[in-house]
Amino acid sequence: MMQHFTCWADVPQPLELLASAKALKQNPWADEGLGKHRTLGLIFFNPSLRTRLSTQKAAYNLGMQVIAMDINEQGWKIETQDGAIMNGDKAEHIKDAVGVMGQYCDIIGVRTFATLSDQEQDYQDFTLEQFKKYAGVPIVSLESAIRHPLQSLADWLTIEEHKTRPRPKVVLTWAPHPKALPQAVANSFAEWMQNTDYEFVITHPEGYELAEEFSQNVQIEYDQNKAFENADFIYAKNWSNYKNYGKVLNQDMNWTVSAQKMQLTNQAKFMHCLPVRRNVVVMDEVIDGSHSIILPQAQNRVFSAQAVLKALLQR
Amino acid sequence: MMQHFTCWADVPQPLELLASAKALKQNPWADEGLGKHRTLGLIFFNPSLRTRLSTQKAAYNLGMQVIAMDINEQGWKIETQDGAIMNGDKAEHIKDAVGVMGQYCDIIGVRTFATLSDQEQDYQDFTLEQFKKYAGVPIVSLESAIRHPLQSLADWLTIEEHKTRPRPKVVLTWAPHPKALPQAVANSFAEWMQNTDYEFVITHPEGYELAEEFSQNVQIEYDQNKAFENADFIYAKNWSNYKNYGKVLNQDMNWTVSAQKMQLTNQAKFMHCLPVRRNVVVMDEVIDGSHSIILPQAQNRVFSAQAVLKALLQR
Amino acid sequence: MMQHFTCWADVPQPLELLASAKALKQNPWADEGLGKHRTLGLIFFNPSLRTRLSTQKAAYNLGMQVIAMDINEQGWKIETQDGAIMNGDKAEHIKDAVGVMGQYCDIIGVRTFATLSDQEQDYQDFTLEQFKKYAGVPIVSLESAIRHPLQSLADWLTIEEHKTRPRPKVVLTWAPHPKALPQAVANSFAEWMQNTDYEFVITHPEGYELAEEFSQNVQIEYDQNKAFENADFIYAKNWSNYKNYGKVLNQDMNWTVSAQKMQLTNQAKFMHCLPVRRNVVVMDEVIDGSHSIILPQAQNRVFSAQAVLKALLQR
Repeated sequence: MMQHFTCWADVPQPLELLASAKALKQNPWADEGLGKHRTLGLIFFNPSLRTRLSTQKAAYNLGMQVIAMDINEQGWKIETQDGAIMNGDKAEHIKDAVGVMGQYCDIIGVRTFATLSDQEQDYQDFTLEQFKKYAGVPIVSLESAIRHPLQSLADWLTIEEHKTRPRPKVVLTWAPHPKALPQAVANSFAEWMQNTDYEFVITHPEGYELAEEFSQNVQIEYDQNKAFENADFIYAKNWSNYKNYGKVLNQDMNWTVSAQKMQLTNQAKFMHCLPVRRNVVVMDEVIDGSHSIILPQAQNRVFSAQAVLKALLQR
Repeated sequence: MMQHFTCWADVPQPLELLASAKALKQNPWADEGLGKHRTLGLIFFNPSLRTRLSTQKAAYNLGMQVIAMDINEQGWKIETQDGAIMNGDKAEHIKDAVGVMGQYCDIIGVRTFATLSDQEQDYQDFTLEQFKKYAGVPIVSLESAIRHPLQSLADWLTIEEHKTRPRPKVVLTWAPHPKALPQAVANSFAEWMQNTDYEFVITHPEGYELAEEFSQNVQIEYDQNKAFENADFIYAKNWSNYKNYGKVLNQDMNWTVSAQKMQLTNQAKFMHCLPVRRNVVVMDEVIDGSHSIILPQAQNRVFSAQAVLKALLQR
Repeated sequence: MMQHFTCWADVPQPLELLASAKALKQNPWADEGLGKHRTLGLIFFNPSLRTRLSTQKAAYNLGMQVIAMDINEQGWKIETQDGAIMNGDKAEHIKDAVGVMGQYCDIIGVRTFATLSDQEQDYQDFTLEQFKKYAGVPIVSLESAIRHPLQSLADWLTIEEHKTRPRPKVVLTWAPHPKALPQAVANSFAEWMQNTDYEFVITHPEGYELAEEFSQNVQIEYDQNKAFENADFIYAKNWSNYKNYGKVLNQDMNWTVSAQKMQLTNQAKFMHCLPVRRNVVVMDEVIDGSHSIILPQAQNRVFSAQAVLKALLQR
């Protein structure tokens, strides 16, 4: 029985969850009575487009009520440190804010990005853990400091739908980006992929290793061209440096995914979680090309979220 | 069959749309099953009060689900130029953002104002066209760079309800305003009015002509007093200069609509789309007077939007 | 018959309203047909967490549709002065904005805080009164410049549920705070409590008297320790100075509610409306202790709001 949905380990039966997402895609309103009288609270510490829209849609498909809130803009500035003497600019402690939300919501989704400055706090997934600790209701990660499991489940579903051989080669490739981005999407994709029976490879410049807990059992290939050989899926994503935490040490445009590089693959499908910096992470020719599956991938966010909400409602 | 609702030309049968709005006003919940399982996405690049509230209300009356989003604040900054190398501050390209929204919504409403600096881009209605191009679902203009058709339809309905003779004289009068405003409401009102059988006159200072495409078949009268003579409806609205694009070249308070000027008319009803600068565009004595129909006009925004959504749902 | 819900005097039969809140807590969906086709507009001039979430939840429990709006961010800047020549930065007059909202909503909730600079305007409850004047539909205060009646009703319900003797001693204690806060929660609590048959005492530093209209019939005790003796409920709250209007003249941490002070009481329950500055207003040891009832108090906000909405829907 799933208590929360914040990482792979939270899911007792991943294959069933995947099957549920597939089934809901065929019949989105099959369970629309399940969420009756149930309220989903969506709390955003950070911007969101796909997650905001797709999770609301998923909840509506299940008959849930949704209350969305941009907490820093619409609520009060939040103190997160235990024992703080709150005489500064932060008006509410996270334990009170979250405790109260748990009084009003049956499930809470929360989006909270990495600071990219405090590695220890980020890799404890501090804010997310506070929600788990104080809400008293199931928590769904809408992307946390170190993971984005709703995205990963949607990615998995997308690969299942588009694979043309039983054990496809799936390549996660680092790509350049002008600003420092969290490692969450990459971490999470690696966590999920290494639990499938795909051939999974990560390629990135030397020094751009992900945290050990996410990459230790994964094949790393520093030569991007070599990694692309025979690939069935190319998943592009930038992340900032983990060792020199949160730094942008490399903007090498040779890592940009181009049509030329895609020709090294087994007619690979191109994936990205979006938003994407066009002509930096990936060239227009690829993302607008016939092998790009970014829109079906985004659409699957609805059914990924819906399968998760359904499982939590059925507890 | 209506594909989008962005201008007069989008409407195959305008008289039927007007009749539908009238009927829905009598019985707002007659079609509340029609929107079941259908999602309306409302995307705001700019502020909105009437449009935000009335369109949501219209959708709820039809049984639709609504997801509203202030895209620049709650989502990512949007790149709109094709082929851009996105290494600046904009995190998502409009073609991806819109493509994704089309995966989640059955109809998308979008509000996007004129830049008032780039006339060519504004008069191509650039952002709105991107939505039409990439969404894959019907687009409803919630006011674009150059038109505000939901307002115009509500205005038409309001005039129909309040006219006291078959062919009333309807006068659109420019009025002063401290800041540069788009031409959208005036353009759109002119577009709709010239397609009715009303006597339609626009009055404005010389040099404040609207774009030819909106004004070429319309009677222009530079003498406001003369224009007001025998008028049944006075529709006040400021717009910034079209030729010296986006400039405020005139703030002449002689153009303010006062009780004295209204005495020149045939006991004309006073209209304005709101928001309105009181005692600049119009004196309190007029807008608060017994001939002001600004509130019924605003109320009709619900039924205008509802008729449009109904037509799009029935495609 | 209740016309608005903005203060104690608005409630014709307070005991019935309290009973209704209790009953709804037992059976939240008993009246879910009552709000069908009815729209609640929630207008926020100021931040809100509990009020935003709990009032939406209450409305959904009654089957209402909800449209929430942060008016200054999502709409237009609002002019509030009558007769203003609106040539500054404010684009819409409150009478027009409110008049329009009344066209779209069956009930309007509005949150509007004190300026803390203009005492006369604040104590006329200027903005709230404009809503009552121009909306044409029932107004619910979501906290105004001088009152927070939904909070007070929830507080009353909470005390009723947790009292252990028929006539408990209820103490409202001022507590220090780094920033100037409105008097609204304290005023409103005092207004409601003096209409119950509890023993009600307010304790605060000399000079921190509330406005006479709220405190004239209430027992004031300047010695906090003495006030705490034999208390059954300690309700902590900061407010800024009323006489030196809006000033913070005292930040004496001796007024912070500590475990030691709570030992003076009759095992009193600790209450606070939240958000609360921990270790300034109250020590962690108290608010996290077994006698803290802040979460049940917050939960009761749902049923307080629901009882009010129900009464207004039944008019």
